[in-house]
Amino acid sequence: MDQLCIVTTGGTIDKIYFDDKSDYQIGEPQIGGILRELGVTFQFTVIPIIRKDSLHISAEDRELLRATIAAQPARHVLVTHGTDTMVETARVLASLADKTIVLTGALSPARFRGSDAEFNIGTAVGAVQCLPPGVYIAMNGRIWDPEKVRKNVDANRFEALG
Amino acid sequence: MDQLCIVTTGGTIDKIYFDDKSDYQIGEPQIGGILRELGVTFQFTVIPIIRKDSLHISAEDRELLRATIAAQPARHVLVTHGTDTMVETARVLASLADKTIVLTGALSPARFRGSDAEFNIGTAVGAVQCLPPGVYIAMNGRIWDPEKVRKNVDANRFEALG
Amino acid sequence: MDQLCIVTTGGTIDKIYFDDKSDYQIGEPQIGGILRELGVTFQFTVIPIIRKDSLHISAEDRELLRATIAAQPARHVLVTHGTDTMVETARVLASLADKTIVLTGALSPARFRGSDAEFNIGTAVGAVQCLPPGVYIAMNGRIWDPEKVRKNVDANRFEALG
Amino acid sequence: MDQLCIVTTGGTIDKIYFDDKSDYQIGEPQIGGILRELGVTFQFTVIPIIRKDSLHISAEDRELLRATIAAQPARHVLVTHGTDTMVETARVLASLADKTIVLTGALSPARFRGSDAEFNIGTAVGAVQCLPPGVYIAMNGRIWDPEKVRKNVDANRFEALG
Repeated sequence: MDQLCIVTTGGTIDKIYFDDKSDYQIGEPQIGGILRELGVTFQFTVIPIIRKDSLHISAEDRELLRATIAAQPARHVLVTHGTDTMVETARVLASLADKTIVLTGALSPARFRGSDAEFNIGTAVGAVQCLPPGVYIAMNGRIWDPEKVRKNVDANRFEALG
Repeated sequence: MDQLCIVTTGGTIDKIYFDDKSDYQIGEPQIGGILRELGVTFQFTVIPIIRKDSLHISAEDRELLRATIAAQPARHVLVTHGTDTMVETARVLASLADKTIVLTGALSPARFRGSDAEFNIGTAVGAVQCLPPGVYIAMNGRIWDPEKVRKNVDANRFEALG
Repeated sequence: MDQLCIVTTGGTIDKIYFDDKSDYQIGEPQIGGILRELGVTFQFTVIPIIRKDSLHISAEDRELLRATIAAQPARHVLVTHGTDTMVETARVLASLADKTIVLTGALSPARFRGSDAEFNIGTAVGAVQCLPPGVYIAMNGRIWDPEKVRKNVDANRFEALG
Repeated sequence: MDQLCIVTTGGTIDKIYFDDKSDYQIGEPQIGGILRELGVTFQFTVIPIIRKDSLHISAEDRELLRATIAAQPARHVLVTHGTDTMVETARVLASLADKTIVLTGALSPARFRGSDAEFNIGTAVGAVQCLPPGVYIAMNGRIWDPEKVRKNVDANRFEALG
């Protein structure tokens, strides 16, 4: 992997808490700072293209994301994305050939103790440099085919389509 | 990946601090608890075969590790190991065919804030289920061929052999 | 301090995040677990009397809290409380004589990285065993007289009444 | 409390881990950064006078510490110190009149998950602004008279002299 292109779209991974508003908001992308602190030795660029809860990501947003990735020379792409519609976005990206694209996110904000963010980013980073071209989802420690996975909202985890 | 076999050998990832002795000691393997807390949805077993700083791992220890892995039915194996001699151990395991084996560890103990342990475990978990049979090292966000990597002790990171 | 009576009322300190509901909820009181993990050597009991965002604490809730504290034999009382109406509750408790009561809470949930929860609990614990009977607020590293402090919501901190 | 003078002497609270040396070293004082991140609203200055494991603090070091504190105008002083000889140092400082001095430290480094550092600093901060002039120790959630406490090294906690 000569270069990893990271495209961020918001989601829980980037949520931060504001007590004065008693509410979460989606903040700056966390992934760049996390990777720098961890001392990774590959090159990466971060493109913060959207900053939304994934329930609010529209067809236009997905087309923008698809076009942005298509325009990058990098063959390895990691997308951070809210979990609720991650599968839907992954299916839209399937039309992109010649790139290995892994989507990941978090069920708990990166700034939370015990968050799955760092681990999930690790899973995605490990997978993206080992997989052939295609679109994949890295959640709950597994690499999923977007056609064969769904988020189980009640159990708050990804699982195989029955 | 139907089942992940995890073999632990000690190393910094499992170091815990004892103030009354003003010293670190290698404690219980951390990886099982970490994976359970993160809510991974694959099956795994943990075999705590050795508990040593990797500078003290002997040829006999490596042979024990090799034989232990050979005896497991699992085709996907993750080994946690101290970083100083991880490359040496990986080369010994190269004689094992038909299994995908990824070694990882940490430059900072798992119980430390900002530790690379969770991320490295994620990288190894992501890679082990995507790679063909062989032996690999997952450190600093990259998947390395043990024949082409070394630990740069001064810089405290893994890098390509020159 | 022979015994510390801790009464919890909810607030940000106890907020936990549920990704499936994309929302915070006030969970189990955190303070007992925190103090046990930290290895404090004083005796304490936790009374989880209310579990609310402090904006929703009513006059009846405050009277219940006052009566509950009055009924305890302990002379040292720590109350965890949401920050928005902590001052108002403290003033209601001022009618209690013969007890040293310190209210504290957090501007960031205890389970968040970088939360002020542990520090604020520490400040309250340090103060409650050193102060004469009365009602006090421990926030932002200071011990406040409830008659002379307010929460500055925009700046998200407690400050002296002008 | 108009102004808090913080004097640091090293100890476990400031220990950081170096994997390339497989060892801890006492690093920069952590307390200033911790207090700034927590958003305390009192003024403070940090004087990093010594950086030692407290087992290596000599009579000369203690005299230097005593003279440094005596030279400060501040009436409220917090000293961070290794736990092994904290009691001994506190007794040397007892000759200082007119100042409220609280010593604290940590049984686990501040940069460790689950460290008691932030809580202990909180306890000391809460106590120092509430106590009359004198020298005190804040450890394990209690405020101790240095003449009546010892560190139980085996149990790794402070306890009353029998």
